[in-house]
Amino acid sequence: MRKLEDLQALIANSVGELKFPIYPAELYEPISYILSIGGKRMRPALLLMACDLFGGDVEAALSPALAIEVFHNFTLMHDDIMDNAPIRRGRATVHEKWDRNVAILSGDVMLIEGYKLMMQVRNNILRQVLDIFNDTAVGVCEGQQLDMTFETSNNISISEYINMIRLKTAVVLGGALKIGALIGEAEQKDADLLSEFGVNLGIAFQLQDDILDVYGDPLKFGKQVGGDIISNKKTYLLIKALELVEGPEAEELNNWLTATQFDAAEKVATVTEIYNSVNVRQYAENEMKAYAEKAFKALEQINLPEENKQYLRDFADGLLVREY
Amino acid sequence: MRKLEDLQALIANSVGELKFPIYPAELYEPISYILSIGGKRMRPALLLMACDLFGGDVEAALSPALAIEVFHNFTLMHDDIMDNAPIRRGRATVHEKWDRNVAILSGDVMLIEGYKLMMQVRNNILRQVLDIFNDTAVGVCEGQQLDMTFETSNNISISEYINMIRLKTAVVLGGALKIGALIGEAEQKDADLLSEFGVNLGIAFQLQDDILDVYGDPLKFGKQVGGDIISNKKTYLLIKALELVEGPEAEELNNWLTATQFDAAEKVATVTEIYNSVNVRQYAENEMKAYAEKAFKALEQINLPEENKQYLRDFADGLLVREY
Repeated sequence: MRKLEDLQALIANSVGELKFPIYPAELYEPISYILSIGGKRMRPALLLMACDLFGGDVEAALSPALAIEVFHNFTLMHDDIMDNAPIRRGRATVHEKWDRNVAILSGDVMLIEGYKLMMQVRNNILRQVLDIFNDTAVGVCEGQQLDMTFETSNNISISEYINMIRLKTAVVLGGALKIGALIGEAEQKDADLLSEFGVNLGIAFQLQDDILDVYGDPLKFGKQVGGDIISNKKTYLLIKALELVEGPEAEELNNWLTATQFDAAEKVATVTEIYNSVNVRQYAENEMKAYAEKAFKALEQINLPEENKQYLRDFADGLLVREY
Repeated sequence: MRKLEDLQALIANSVGELKFPIYPAELYEPISYILSIGGKRMRPALLLMACDLFGGDVEAALSPALAIEVFHNFTLMHDDIMDNAPIRRGRATVHEKWDRNVAILSGDVMLIEGYKLMMQVRNNILRQVLDIFNDTAVGVCEGQQLDMTFETSNNISISEYINMIRLKTAVVLGGALKIGALIGEAEQKDADLLSEFGVNLGIAFQLQDDILDVYGDPLKFGKQVGGDIISNKKTYLLIKALELVEGPEAEELNNWLTATQFDAAEKVATVTEIYNSVNVRQYAENEMKAYAEKAFKALEQINLPEENKQYLRDFADGLLVREY
């Protein structure tokens, strides 16, 4: 088994070597630009890892892995327009550096380039791989739409929220793993189980992210603790709290959500107190644990040598920083 | 051979029957909306026609034909954002009726839905059909980017312009015909020739459109005669005129191009006079004729019964309103 870091490095190198036409420059330069900005290259590395797990040729999985990375960056390019985001990973976003139209059209071409890369698989799995890629891509778009709709919506249920993060974040992890497994000539059943592992792990990971945003160690978390609270982001914690709070606390939470002028630290502290008073952290951890368990249950059923399963367990443990 | 109108009607019906998910509504309603607005359904009808020409089963070509129509409407949805167009075919554009973000994301999903429909072909041609579709889709995006770049650029050559209309308009006609031919089990050579026919016919058709915008019969043309002149659109005629005019006429043309306040009828009349003085109509007609001849030359080489070739000739004649 190759180390995940090595696979990430292999992707980073290969992304750097991806060649696009030079004309028209406004169409292709933004693609090279956004791909060069970096990121952890986790999604494509997972595709390679899945192929490797089943004894497949990692080199043969490289183009489809790059497809996942190009696709992911297409979604970032368009999401950044939709979110009016000026900065991504410390660099100007494409619609800022060029303009909005360039970001729309370059993104469109990236999606097509993603298909071109994804097609570089054996004929006997081409249709299935593309079916998975289509479902993944549609899922991510649906998730992004739901995320935007939820921003201005007041009655989101927990199940709607979980469905949104499943589509926006988790489905692509499952898809990448499944495609990698098929390239590695896994049995259909094992590819499905690995996908199930990935989707459930992705949901657990996103729930953990929600928890860490409020309760994480500022030194380890990497983002501003309380950022979700400051921006009224509809996370698991907020949705659950809105479901549970009553009386004056409900009023206070709503006041913070509608306040336009406030001291950020005070807002974070007070909203966190409200969260604590109704135990949302515990609910969130239980939910996260439930999805992690689903992931591990799927993992155990995969027909792989114990050593390879341990690799997957270690990977999941590293991702989840589990304490149970 | 089925009549082209019948094939267009078949497409119109089938487009009406296309089913998309109902959730999230903001993602899928705009797709049904833009597809319902209509249009001549020419591109998908050409795909069916090509399949029929080679004795193929038109029903088997229906999903790929719909893919071409869905793809075409994806490009319209995104182009309308980029052009800030409020109206398309007499109806509000998607970014006007909903908002810009909805139009971006619904368009993205349409491109994916296009792939899903295009994949509904026999396994033995799947890869080739998708390769053609990829090339077509990239071409259209490149053409759109060049079209936008040319708007603010002053030194466009005729060959750059022809390349732009080839990519933006003609390549998709060639692609649709080629895919239809392959579904109809045409030989590779014949599919290539039919594509060549379509691309060159498309370029000739676009040049004719440029000519008709200035010299067309207002009763027959359907658009405002002189619209391109009023909006300074870089057509073949304008680019050629800029190449040919000298002295005071060059100055006058440039004055009209930079004028912000003007009488539209006067601008159309004067610029048309300048066009006439350097014979741009003749140049344009010669160029159009050259591409039409390339199209007909490719057509003659296709291995098809004379009757089917006559069908294609009649189709091209109808499109080009030829006088030669």
